[in-house]
Amino acid sequence: MSKSRNILLDVLRLTKRPKLQNHTSFLASRPNSTASPNPFRTPKGIPKPAPPRRRILQALVGGATFATVVGAQFEERTDAKANIDQVEASEKKPRQIRLHEVRQHNAASREPWVTKGTSVYDITDWVDAHPGGDVILRAAGGSIDAYWNIFTIHKKQDVYDILEQYKIGEIDETDLIDGHVPQDAIEDPFVTDPARDPSLRVLTAKPCNAETPPEALSDFLTPNPTFYVRNHMWVPVVEEPESEYRLSIELPDGEEKSYTIKELKERFPMHKITVTLQCSGNRRKDMTVHAKQTNGLQWTAGAISSAEWEGVKLRDVLADAGIGALGQKLPEDARHVQFMGLEAYGASIPISKAIDPLGDVLLAFKMNGEELPRDHGYPLRVVVPGNVAARSVKWLRKIVVSDEESLSQWQRRDYKCFGPNVSNPDWTKAKSIQEMPITSAITSVLSPSSTEESRNQLTVEGYAYSGGGREIVRVDISTDGGKSWDQAELLSDSTKGSKAWCWKRWRYTGPCRSCDETTLVVKATDEAYNTQPESYEAIYNPRGNLATAWHRVSYAPGT
Amino acid sequence: MSKSRNILLDVLRLTKRPKLQNHTSFLASRPNSTASPNPFRTPKGIPKPAPPRRRILQALVGGATFATVVGAQFEERTDAKANIDQVEASEKKPRQIRLHEVRQHNAASREPWVTKGTSVYDITDWVDAHPGGDVILRAAGGSIDAYWNIFTIHKKQDVYDILEQYKIGEIDETDLIDGHVPQDAIEDPFVTDPARDPSLRVLTAKPCNAETPPEALSDFLTPNPTFYVRNHMWVPVVEEPESEYRLSIELPDGEEKSYTIKELKERFPMHKITVTLQCSGNRRKDMTVHAKQTNGLQWTAGAISSAEWEGVKLRDVLADAGIGALGQKLPEDARHVQFMGLEAYGASIPISKAIDPLGDVLLAFKMNGEELPRDHGYPLRVVVPGNVAARSVKWLRKIVVSDEESLSQWQRRDYKCFGPNVSNPDWTKAKSIQEMPITSAITSVLSPSSTEESRNQLTVEGYAYSGGGREIVRVDISTDGGKSWDQAELLSDSTKGSKAWCWKRWRYTGPCRSCDETTLVVKATDEAYNTQPESYEAIYNPRGNLATAWHRVSYAPGT
Repeated sequence: MSKSRNILLDVLRLTKRPKLQNHTSFLASRPNSTASPNPFRTPKGIPKPAPPRRRILQALVGGATFATVVGAQFEERTDAKANIDQVEASEKKPRQIRLHEVRQHNAASREPWVTKGTSVYDITDWVDAHPGGDVILRAAGGSIDAYWNIFTIHKKQDVYDILEQYKIGEIDETDLIDGHVPQDAIEDPFVTDPARDPSLRVLTAKPCNAETPPEALSDFLTPNPTFYVRNHMWVPVVEEPESEYRLSIELPDGEEKSYTIKELKERFPMHKITVTLQCSGNRRKDMTVHAKQTNGLQWTAGAISSAEWEGVKLRDVLADAGIGALGQKLPEDARHVQFMGLEAYGASIPISKAIDPLGDVLLAFKMNGEELPRDHGYPLRVVVPGNVAARSVKWLRKIVVSDEESLSQWQRRDYKCFGPNVSNPDWTKAKSIQEMPITSAITSVLSPSSTEESRNQLTVEGYAYSGGGREIVRVDISTDGGKSWDQAELLSDSTKGSKAWCWKRWRYTGPCRSCDETTLVVKATDEAYNTQPESYEAIYNPRGNLATAWHRVSYAPGT
Repeated sequence: MSKSRNILLDVLRLTKRPKLQNHTSFLASRPNSTASPNPFRTPKGIPKPAPPRRRILQALVGGATFATVVGAQFEERTDAKANIDQVEASEKKPRQIRLHEVRQHNAASREPWVTKGTSVYDITDWVDAHPGGDVILRAAGGSIDAYWNIFTIHKKQDVYDILEQYKIGEIDETDLIDGHVPQDAIEDPFVTDPARDPSLRVLTAKPCNAETPPEALSDFLTPNPTFYVRNHMWVPVVEEPESEYRLSIELPDGEEKSYTIKELKERFPMHKITVTLQCSGNRRKDMTVHAKQTNGLQWTAGAISSAEWEGVKLRDVLADAGIGALGQKLPEDARHVQFMGLEAYGASIPISKAIDPLGDVLLAFKMNGEELPRDHGYPLRVVVPGNVAARSVKWLRKIVVSDEESLSQWQRRDYKCFGPNVSNPDWTKAKSIQEMPITSAITSVLSPSSTEESRNQLTVEGYAYSGGGREIVRVDISTDGGKSWDQAELLSDSTKGSKAWCWKRWRYTGPCRSCDETTLVVKATDEAYNTQPESYEAIYNPRGNLATAWHRVSYAPGT
């Protein structure tokens, strides 16, 4: 491991872990922060009237979108003083800075710098206000471009305007190669990511987003190495033992409790629950193909997998911490349970789901009988059965019980749907996806054998899944493009948990009605008798979420 | 009130109420019945090996379908003795019986007779075995034809065969008019039904099945007089005061408790909850029109209404009776809660719904601030929010906590769906409908006014509803037959309860894209992002249940 990497890891340890270990809140340990029972309690979309620094910190801790905070900051910076600063800056000849100087202003420095293109910025005053938190220090001493290529939400004018305010100079031309800052000056944040199974179908390598291959989709429980991977960032490196890794829980009254993993395991009953996790973008590529272009990872039918998860129930831990015990009245402001990952990802679920005796929300340590793999949240993740996988936050470090949803972009923006006519959504107008709608997919087609009696027999297999623990009650198959239907056999797999949290595997063997070239179609029905939409046009959304229309697969005998 | 009616009512009182008042089970008070902790605990579809009489009683008390019991009885009667009886009977010349003799063998008689056509039957030995229970005595002393015209399930050969075994003679020709038993000899069981609002759209008068008229569908809470009526039989006459009307509750261990309405009101907290009730056949006529013929009442969009219900929570009463108290472990055999109405209707819900703290299942006394109207269950009904209205049993007299669903035809047959290819369903293969799938309907279209600026503006109104308390998050409207879409405004109505149990009213005012003759279309989305199916072909079922495809309404300006 390189020296700079060690420094970065030290910085991350220094800035995060001691606070959790001391049972003090992240906010309280910061300079300039005023005492507050719950910094997350801000009215939706309207910042509280508070001192500028305080206001930004609220958003930072809550994991607000960069854009939200940027808005506030930009407003502050348009005062008279800021204008004068800008005018003065534009009149000076840019200072020429050598690359080795930049490297000294790394994460360990009191004055961290970054470069963007050939410009140099002193971000010392910005670190505290950065919505992603201290993560920005990973870029200190080098270029921020690689990070912004990952976190593309930064790529807009109002964010550029913020950064421009911290500009201190330009990289000396001596250090440029063909006019660019050389590539080896950029720290690769993914160098510590785990090795992965080569059969995974990789959509993006950094961060890793990879589908379960079709052959692994035929298992009821997906083997850990081929369980689909959906990472928003790099995989955090955790080196503490179980007796030191702490999960902190902040209650609406501001009180904060914490538990080491060792304590969680010793103090609460362990449960095993079989749960399917599915990305909201599963089968997004179908929507692109059958309707029109969508933004986001072009998953086929493999952004879904199932496992037996083992851990303690969130409701038991919350009750111990003081929220939602049996017979106890919930405080009015306990409406959402926010989860924060080590890598800055955040999301939340409604409190009703968190404390539902039949909700089965787990704080999981194990996956299919093994220690959680690093890609799937080692050492601790949430598993929210029946909900979109985006709420099952990995590398869990903090829980906040709040009157508000998580402020993260993954709660407030990305995982929502709009009408098929809406190209430029007002994100505040839609509910974040929690329970998933019903869906199904064909995962394999076995060609008829060459014997006379089976020449017109097809065997088709796949899965069906519905959110909210709603059991799949029927799978309809068409071998003539949807003109006529038959029912698939539903396989009897052994599940664990209070509701139907797992996909239903199905198999259809029957006559192929038009066994020339044809389209095979599957649609499923759940116990609330909800069914899938027929086509993509009427559920189209530019983000390509919830691509759940009938799954159509072209089939030609002999192919 | 006629004398015979009084006698019938007395009989009904004698045969039902004293048993409830004495806290003894209906079964235990019968001759020949063996003691059993729970007569409802029979394996699905397979009668227990038990003495014939016992076997029939089990089904009778459980409210099994006539056909089920008839099957068992027919089997018993094909023994040697029965065959000899039949041979002997066929050799005799039929006994001639005068009508006044028949009338003496009425419900008060020790030997009740009925006529069917011109034949006379002594049903004394059949009463105990009749699946509808003592209700058969309403026909005693007269013709059974009128009843079978209502309960058409009797009209099949195996039922005719049963009755034939009890034949004792023919009506004397002297009493026939044009070869028929005169009409005035038939007792009308609906004569005590309440008066009804003339604006209700009546589909059948006896039993009363009537839609809410479109003008009343625009109210958030439907006025009691125009709340849709779905009766399977006549409306029971209840004359006892609240201090005497008893609800009995039978637990899985056979223990039975009972509460008068007065006790329920005094001992448990009262709750008000706004709930939409919807028939599983709402909009069935659409399915007939757009796919093909369906069996059942041809409802348009008015088999749905909303009210504020007031009563005590079922979970509180069950906990008091000994099931499902907070922190208490449920017995393994407590899986379903069966409800029995005074008029022989029965249905059940899963125990998880019954005891869910957020499930809000009520034992209701009041509807929109008034005493329950007789048509809606006076003096006591169940209200199961989020589930098909068929589970909200009216005129509630008994609750049984069991390991099985209700044995009634309304639980085991009618309210289920199958694939679009299935014309002759195996009823055991589908789950009974509980939570409803998402639906929506257009209830009014206001033509554009004649002013220049609003000539191409349309105002369309309606409702959207989803089961399970899933909130409606979006309503999409198309004014060009589904080619393009816009969003309707969702009205903010004040609801009461733990979840979104009520319909969402919506209004759309916008340009009519092709304002010549066109088709208006509505489709809704709920918080689990489930949507409605596009067309009826793919959800067709011969019973016409859950006709939830996009609602299409033809529109021509000026009409």
